Amino acid sequence: MQDPFDQKKKSILAEIGATDEITPDASPKGTIDEFCIPIIHLINSNKDMVTTSSCSGRVSVFLEGMKNIDQDDIKIGAKGNYGRWIFVTHDPKDLPDWSSSVNFKYITDGSSYGSTDVNARYILYKFEPLILHVKCRDLEMANNLYSVAMSCGFRESGIGTNNIVGIRISIKLDVPIGFLNETNQELTSFVSEDYLRIITKLSEDRFKENFKKLDALYKAIESLNTLKSPISKVETKEERKSRKMKEGLARREEVRALKEQKKKEKLSSEQQEKHHEQKQ
Amino acid sequence: MQDPFDQKKKSILAEIGATDEITPDASPKGTIDEFCIPIIHLINSNKDMVTTSSCSGRVSVFLEGMKNIDQDDIKIGAKGNYGRWIFVTHDPKDLPDWSSSVNFKYITDGSSYGSTDVNARYILYKFEPLILHVKCRDLEMANNLYSVAMSCGFRESGIGTNNIVGIRISIKLDVPIGFLNETNQELTSFVSEDYLRIITKLSEDRFKENFKKLDALYKAIESLNTLKSPISKVETKEERKSRKMKEGLARREEVRALKEQKKKEKLSSEQQEKHHEQKQ
Repeated sequence: MQDPFDQKKKSILAEIGATDEITPDASPKGTIDEFCIPIIHLINSNKDMVTTSSCSGRVSVFLEGMKNIDQDDIKIGAKGNYGRWIFVTHDPKDLPDWSSSVNFKYITDGSSYGSTDVNARYILYKFEPLILHVKCRDLEMANNLYSVAMSCGFRESGIGTNNIVGIRISIKLDVPIGFLNETNQELTSFVSEDYLRIITKLSEDRFKENFKKLDALYKAIESLNTLKSPISKVETKEERKSRKMKEGLARREEVRALKEQKKKEKLSSEQQEKHHEQKQ
Repeated sequence: MQDPFDQKKKSILAEIGATDEITPDASPKGTIDEFCIPIIHLINSNKDMVTTSSCSGRVSVFLEGMKNIDQDDIKIGAKGNYGRWIFVTHDPKDLPDWSSSVNFKYITDGSSYGSTDVNARYILYKFEPLILHVKCRDLEMANNLYSVAMSCGFRESGIGTNNIVGIRISIKLDVPIGFLNETNQELTSFVSEDYLRIITKLSEDRFKENFKKLDALYKAIESLNTLKSPISKVETKEERKSRKMKEGLARREEVRALKEQKKKEKLSSEQQEKHHEQKQ
């Protein structure tokens, strides 16, 4: 019978393989982000790992869903209940002038913001960095991958249930930029077009930083894959003591051998010198 | 000899006990956040857990550090290299009118933003939610705490090395609000005072949501502490089968006993009724 991990990996890979623009997956985009494909292939080439979800990083602008004030169930920044996407991209090339494609009404008069209305549905602009979930065969592999991610600066990573490692960083932007005018249903921006240009530019910087981190992670996982003797699992005190003793003995043996070697070399060079001298 | 976990816990608790405003800890604030104290006590009352760091949630405004463009080492939103705090609070009561205490120069002319300067040091306004790190005695306890946190909506939680559980949510705000004018060293805001009022109000909403989540987590950990038979470690297929069988048998036994009981009661009530009838 096939190992449960191998079985699971096979079915995930089959699903990934079957996904394209015609048969999308469950994500809003429906397909795997282009910039994630190399690292996904790299991870899945390791027999002890399989990717279960991924986002290469994105800018998104969305309108919050309707809030159920009466039920004291205010979902801040939630997309459910008629929330909707206004703009999404995973590619910094699509960023410049994104806002000109949206029919925003810009207001500058603070008194007409309506921001104190608890029912207000806000428009949120977000930069969200790379996130990867990787299922590992066992806790040992999960610990290895976790350590690799942390060492690349993915400081919000962690291991969840079923040896799934979440790889996360905190390069973010989370900016309220407007609200829905309930009277005329206009998307109303309470920041200026200039301000939108600034956060767009700052998102480009964050994309750069994000892809730098993605590259570093790729290289680190590459090393992990080719590592002949992977980092061993967390040792007990006794295991450590025994390992240290063995290493100490090995080192002493090495030093002894080196000394022996040098002695021989010295002897041989002295003999050569003597020989040389004798020759003179 | 004392168990290593107990030893570590003892030293952490001693450190927490010795920290106050006169002898601060390593955090910018120097002491444990007031709103975290109840949950920290609750967690530490469990012999298998100890808190290693905490933040109850906060609003912070800070000026980025200087950037080393030449070295291609641009730290986005980093506080190092002469970055500085402009405002920090863990208490929503301190939020209203925070901006009037800062000497911001407000500009509205987009052309003078200087935002395209790669050296620009931005002022960032952030809402950061509750974060807790808890060291657990073993992986079983770490898994239990992780599951509890996830079930309360702390979806970005994870287990790190040494059975340390990071408890995280993503209720955030991360808003660039201005920059440092290098010519006159003025803190310059490229958003209006009205906009600052809006994000302040939205931070109050996030604080409410944050404390609601903190309460839920408190209650869930309380149940975990008083649970007589804590959730067992992840089962193998065989263990699950055996447990399910035992549970099935126990349930059948219970049902059988219940039926027996009802039969007896029925019999007894019938006898009573008969008796009653006889009495009539």
